[in-house]
Amino acid sequence: MAQKPSIPKGTRDFSPMEMGRRNYIFDTIKSIFQKYGYQPIETPAMENLSTLMGKYGEEGDRLLFKILNSGDYLKKLDENDLSEGNSQKSAIKISEKGLRYDLTVPFARYVVQHRNDIVFPFKRYQIQPVWRADRPQKGRYREFFQCDIDVIGSNSLLNETELIRVIDEIFKNLGIDITIKLNNRKILSGIATIIDEPERLTDITTAIDKLDKIGIEKVYDELRAKGLSEDAINNLEPIINLGGENSKKLLCLKELIGLSEDGSKGILEMETMLSHLELLDIKAKIEIDQSLARGLNYYTGAIIEVKANDVNIGSICGGGRYDNLTGIFGLQDVSGVGVSFGADRIYDVLNELNAFPEQSQTTSELMIINFGEKESLHSLQVLEEIHKSGIKAELYPESAKVQKQMKYANQKSIPFVLLVGEEEMKTGNYTLKDMKTGDQYKFKLSQIINFIKEY
Amino acid sequence: MAQKPSIPKGTRDFSPMEMGRRNYIFDTIKSIFQKYGYQPIETPAMENLSTLMGKYGEEGDRLLFKILNSGDYLKKLDENDLSEGNSQKSAIKISEKGLRYDLTVPFARYVVQHRNDIVFPFKRYQIQPVWRADRPQKGRYREFFQCDIDVIGSNSLLNETELIRVIDEIFKNLGIDITIKLNNRKILSGIATIIDEPERLTDITTAIDKLDKIGIEKVYDELRAKGLSEDAINNLEPIINLGGENSKKLLCLKELIGLSEDGSKGILEMETMLSHLELLDIKAKIEIDQSLARGLNYYTGAIIEVKANDVNIGSICGGGRYDNLTGIFGLQDVSGVGVSFGADRIYDVLNELNAFPEQSQTTSELMIINFGEKESLHSLQVLEEIHKSGIKAELYPESAKVQKQMKYANQKSIPFVLLVGEEEMKTGNYTLKDMKTGDQYKFKLSQIINFIKEY
Repeated sequence: MAQKPSIPKGTRDFSPMEMGRRNYIFDTIKSIFQKYGYQPIETPAMENLSTLMGKYGEEGDRLLFKILNSGDYLKKLDENDLSEGNSQKSAIKISEKGLRYDLTVPFARYVVQHRNDIVFPFKRYQIQPVWRADRPQKGRYREFFQCDIDVIGSNSLLNETELIRVIDEIFKNLGIDITIKLNNRKILSGIATIIDEPERLTDITTAIDKLDKIGIEKVYDELRAKGLSEDAINNLEPIINLGGENSKKLLCLKELIGLSEDGSKGILEMETMLSHLELLDIKAKIEIDQSLARGLNYYTGAIIEVKANDVNIGSICGGGRYDNLTGIFGLQDVSGVGVSFGADRIYDVLNELNAFPEQSQTTSELMIINFGEKESLHSLQVLEEIHKSGIKAELYPESAKVQKQMKYANQKSIPFVLLVGEEEMKTGNYTLKDMKTGDQYKFKLSQIINFIKEY
Repeated sequence: MAQKPSIPKGTRDFSPMEMGRRNYIFDTIKSIFQKYGYQPIETPAMENLSTLMGKYGEEGDRLLFKILNSGDYLKKLDENDLSEGNSQKSAIKISEKGLRYDLTVPFARYVVQHRNDIVFPFKRYQIQPVWRADRPQKGRYREFFQCDIDVIGSNSLLNETELIRVIDEIFKNLGIDITIKLNNRKILSGIATIIDEPERLTDITTAIDKLDKIGIEKVYDELRAKGLSEDAINNLEPIINLGGENSKKLLCLKELIGLSEDGSKGILEMETMLSHLELLDIKAKIEIDQSLARGLNYYTGAIIEVKANDVNIGSICGGGRYDNLTGIFGLQDVSGVGVSFGADRIYDVLNELNAFPEQSQTTSELMIINFGEKESLHSLQVLEEIHKSGIKAELYPESAKVQKQMKYANQKSIPFVLLVGEEEMKTGNYTLKDMKTGDQYKFKLSQIINFIKEY
């Protein structure tokens, strides 16, 4: 017997019902991206490993899915490779392509490669799957979708403001209450300067970024372990513990780190963004979070992170400004800012909130019951007229038992069935049945079309 | 300096312009699939190699992109592998996953794996990229998109009729004149029987399938080389050369192969399909082509192929009925029928016919010129009102020279720009400029919104 088929761990099939829900998310995101003037691009699933390696740290290099070279790749391996047993080191000898790990590095590569054809500022969106050889666990997959939006080639803070509007509108449309947390790399840098540890910026941000997860005491432990003095930690404490309204936080931050050049720049940028947002009708809660770092060292200005207020699931969207992403590919001084929406987590949030629209699945509006050969030939022509009116409809392909056909319509959530029997063929009065209420109507074809269109 | 970035050969980036055109094709195809009651599914990019290997012949196995196992894959190789140098044989030791090669095998795997959750007959569509390590050349890529539609679990010929309606409507909507060629595996089988070579069905179909490409004489040469007798070839000649109208072809076929059981079944199926189609409003030319085989041995009934009448590019859509595709995964006796649309070739056809809609690119309907800080703050609020009305619009993020901003709007094909200067802020009368005609209007905000919505 043939083996029982399965798919690689960490990957998923999507059924019509799941596709309907996923497309509801993608369509909502896409339509708002477009409303703000962003245009789509796509890049290949495979990139050269030289494009990907070294961009995500050592851990990232390990998590890249690498594609075995075609042809006689074995020629590139020798006995030393086997005896050394260094699979990571040998991988690049027999593999020169990998699956993309995120959309950011391929986008940077795209911008540099096509810079002569691009109109700057370039507002692009990109919705594609990415792959990571991570250990699969609940909510973490080896194939998942990112929805990225970036503006590249403009320093204006109006872009940050726009991204916040986009975030706000998307989650408002999806019916998810959110908090948008804001920070600025320059504020983090100001903090490091003020506590007299400017060299330890990365250590400090890495540690305080974990505040939510491990609590304040463990953050301090980690900082001590990294060599931070008790003085520095004491100075850090009031900054980290800063609470209250945004206006109060800004005042305190000015007092605490306003004397550092970076700190005062960061505060000014934050104030400008908040002053923009005050002019606008924003539904989300906006919260300054001076401990937010999002791990990544490539942010140079605003840092943005979104959490769902009613579901405990981590961040569902995040990003920030990066001043030199394209530098890794040889194009200097091109500033960009962008955020990425995690479609899979948003799916889980909507699921938990029970907030998917009742009917997100694509299905026929009407199904014609098949009573036999003669009836089905007549039905073919009826169906053609119904299709011409733009209504989604199908004819059950077999003259199976009516009960079986009805069950099929029910399972596919088709709201109406049409009975075209001998009697109906003679009179031209067809029986339309509402599958929800059970009501039946005797209608001419034109009435059926109008009835369903107005339904 | 950083290296010049590039992408793997045979793969492509898609710019906003290309994405607009590609989405026009995908959206047209998708909307018609849905109109006929087909529902979407998606499967992972990676499948287990055990699912893929042996399904596409030896050549296919070679063309699969294989993914290097994570972890210490080298342990699985020994010195014998190196000394033998059989890269193909060793590949499955260090790789257990591959990128999908088409959508048909993953679909068969899906049906078997999820058979308890599927409502049969299952009408599904699937639009996803596939990957083949083929030698790249003009029009042939290593990553390309297939758009598949299948009905599985129904023997009725109404399904074949429906697929032809779907094909007809899609190409009618795209503005491509087509010929739909029809054949039936049972007719091919009847031919083999009648010329007394029933065992050589595969050799015969493989050879006559090349008729278009290599001409009749070379087909005969190939058949001779395969061991066909001169008698058989002489008997084959009138069948292959059969021309004229479909009705005449059917009459002749009945005479020539009607005595074989398969042949007469195939002719009856063909007649039934044609009688359905006569009842309907089909624009495409329908042509019986008794030499059509589409290479593949898994077809068991109808064989369908579509050619563009005005562009010489090979088939742009094709498929047929297969009675046991899921058998390879252990689920017997499930009949299916389907066709696959080649999105990349359709793109090339539309390009050559210059038949893309003028504006398939997603772009803003309006751009606000940025005159400086004060004006941009006011503009933010104007923009918010415009967005609320559902109009796609953007504010240029920098207060650059007006000329530069206008150029940006032109390059993005934005049809209107709005000037919000000091004067306009005072009066609330904004200047709207039509970028095509150069006409300018003085409008209140509500007038602008109505004007653009009605444009």
